Formats: sequence, C-alpha cells, structure tokens
Amino acid sequence: MSSTAPRGSRATTPRSGASRGRRAGGADTRGEILEAARASFADKGYAGTSVRAVAADAGVDSALVHHYFGTKDDLFLAALEMPTDPRPIMAAVADGDRDGVGRRLVEAFLGVWDDPDTRLPLLAIVRSGVAGEPGRSIVETAMRRLVFGYLVQALEIEDGDRRFALVVSQMAGLVMTRYVLLLEPIASMPADEVVAWLGPTLQRYLTDPAP
Amino acid sequence: MSSTAPRGSRATTPRSGASRGRRAGGADTRGEILEAARASFADKGYAGTSVRAVAADAGVDSALVHHYFGTKDDLFLAALEMPTDPRPIMAAVADGDRDGVGRRLVEAFLGVWDDPDTRLPLLAIVRSGVAGEPGRSIVETAMRRLVFGYLVQALEIEDGDRRFALVVSQMAGLVMTRYVLLLEPIASMPADEVVAWLGPTLQRYLTDPAP
Repeated sequence: MSSTAPRGSRATTPRSGASRGRRAGGADTRGEILEAARASFADKGYAGTSVRAVAADAGVDSALVHHYFGTKDDLFLAALEMPTDPRPIMAAVADGDRDGVGRRLVEAFLGVWDDPDTRLPLLAIVRSGVAGEPGRSIVETAMRRLVFGYLVQALEIEDGDRRFALVVSQMAGLVMTRYVLLLEPIASMPADEVVAWLGPTLQRYLTDPAP
Repeated sequence: MSSTAPRGSRATTPRSGASRGRRAGGADTRGEILEAARASFADKGYAGTSVRAVAADAGVDSALVHHYFGTKDDLFLAALEMPTDPRPIMAAVADGDRDGVGRRLVEAFLGVWDDPDTRLPLLAIVRSGVAGEPGRSIVETAMRRLVFGYLVQALEIEDGDRRFALVVSQMAGLVMTRYVLLLEPIASMPADEVVAWLGPTLQRYLTDPAP
C-alpha cells in the first residue's frame, strides 16, 4: 500500500476508514487534521495541544486548520464529535436572572439529551469518559471549559470547581437513570417535571453560600 | 519466585472455590444453596423465587435453607453478596424527625460507601446492575425493597416510586463522581460537607410536595 508510514497511534484512533494517502484532497486533509487533533488531545491533553502542532502532525499549514475548524476550541469539539455546540446553549443559560439559572440549566440539558439525534453521540462521549484515560480527562476538560466555564464566568460564581463537581453529581445520575438504566418513572417523566424537581437542586449547588 | 500456582480466579463465579460434589458437607451445602438462589433470582427475579424452590434446586430441605440463611430477604442479600445488611441501617435512617431524613440518608450512605471494605463489594453490585439483565432488575429490587422500602413505609411517603427514582438520580451521580471517576473536589470532600450539600436535595426529593 502506501509507503508513507506516518505518525503512530493508529491502533487506538476510533474510526476513520479514510485512505492512508497524505494530503490527498479536501476531505482527506480534513480527516487527517481531525485524526492528528484526536491523537494530540489524547496524548497531551487540551492544554498541551496547539493548532500549530496539530497542523504540523497533519502535514498542513496552521491556516488550513483554522480554515476548516476555526479556533482550538472548535477543533476540540470536532475531535470529540460533539453533536451540538454547547457554547451558544450555555450562553443562553447564563443570560438571564441569577435565580433562574438552575432551571435554565436543566432545561438546556434536557433539550439536547431528550433528542435522540444528540443523545446517542453524547452517550458515546460519556462512555469514552467513563472508560478511563485519555477519554476521561478530555471529557472533563470539555465539560469544565466549554460547558460549565460559561456559567462560572458569566455569573461570577466563586469556587467553580466545587460547584461544577456538585452539578455533575446530580446530572451524571440523571443521565444514568433517565437515559441509561431507564429507571421509571424518571425515564419517561415530562421534561417540565424534571426541571421542577432538579432545577432547585442545581440552583443551590451553583449559587447558594457554601454550607 | 513461588512455584505454587494458585487457583486462577475461576472465570465467572466471583469466589466459591467449592468443589462440585453434591450435598457433600456443611460448607458445600451452603454454597450449593447460594448457587441455586443466585440462579433463581437471575432467572425468575425476586418475586418468582421461593425458598422452597431454591431448596429443591439445591437438593435440600427448606428448613436447611432457613437454618443457613434465615428469610428469603436474607437469602437474597447473601446471593447478592451485600457486604452489609442495609435493613438496620435504613431503620435507623427512618427513625428520627422527618425533616432530618435527607441528611441521615446521606450520612448512612457515606458510612458504607466511604469504607473501602464495603465500597468495593458495593461497586461490584452496582456494576452488575449497570451491565444489564438480570443484574439490573435484581439490584433494582434490592434497592427498592431492602433499602428504600423502609423509608417509604416508616415515613408514609406517598408516590414512593417517583421519589425513589429522584433519590437514585442524585446518589448514582454521587457514586460516579466520588467513587468511580474520582472527580475533585467531590472525591475527597469531607463527609460532613457532602451531607450538608446533598442532604437538603434528598430531603426535598423525599418529602416536599410534588411540584
């Protein structure tokens, strides 16, 4: 086959039935950038990855990475195969009265999780996070940076790490019961009832004074 | 080093290095009863299992099953390999003022989960519940009947199934973050701080009027 034996880590990368040809055409180049990005985020984490280094690994110019994917955060979301961009969603959650942020966060969460088109890719991401490293740190970075970070900044939440962990402690359990174990009646509970039950919980975890 | 190559961990059955001989002696008989009980709870569920049928499957008299294990619930806990009997713990949680039940439930939960001697077997049980049938229904029955049922009865909680699912939605997430993913700072948060944060959540799920 191809005699160019490019950078390793093939065995581990999840999909890409793409041909092995280097810098072949538009579609292949895009795929090679994504593959290089996944390898870098997995090996070096979010902070240790740069667009420049990903471009070099893929044998292209940085400008081409920006052209295809935008910023490093955009590239990160593409590498994760996020089915939806959490940033505008979280901006909307943050935009509103502080006392309603818990409800808005549950509503936004159900908006993407109750829809099978987004739920199934999200479940795949969750599974890669639960399976262990490197998926775990990557998913955690995504949640902290691209999901939760918006709230912390916009609402000037102090002690964000603690409140992030508390929110995850409720929402991970909601994912388990409503979408994985299908525990009734929470699995088929109307969204507005879930919001009414869990909204005040998240509100307390986000904005109440520490006990 | 050592040339004694010990028994290999038996592929499927967790412990029981017991030999196959039928009705051999005390130890074997006990193991055979347990094995018959596990098979019956897995095949026929909790409701479909009787001490009489388990005894017949194991080729012994029902009285011997009662002698070794006590009631059907006791046999169920032994078959699950529960590392601690939840019934006295839940009786203590139920015994006290109604406004403090949320805190007492989190305290009791942490009492068994923060201790590695009980946490590790509990995690094995949780995994068998998450892995799918028959573990799932067995674990769910155990939780509903032998853990949560006490509260529902003692506190005369209405709509117990809904409140059970809500409580599980928080506590499953606590297990994930504190004991499986080791998400900081919740993984190393002092127990009394976890109680202070999560106690009011469980209180609301257990005793607040439906929204």
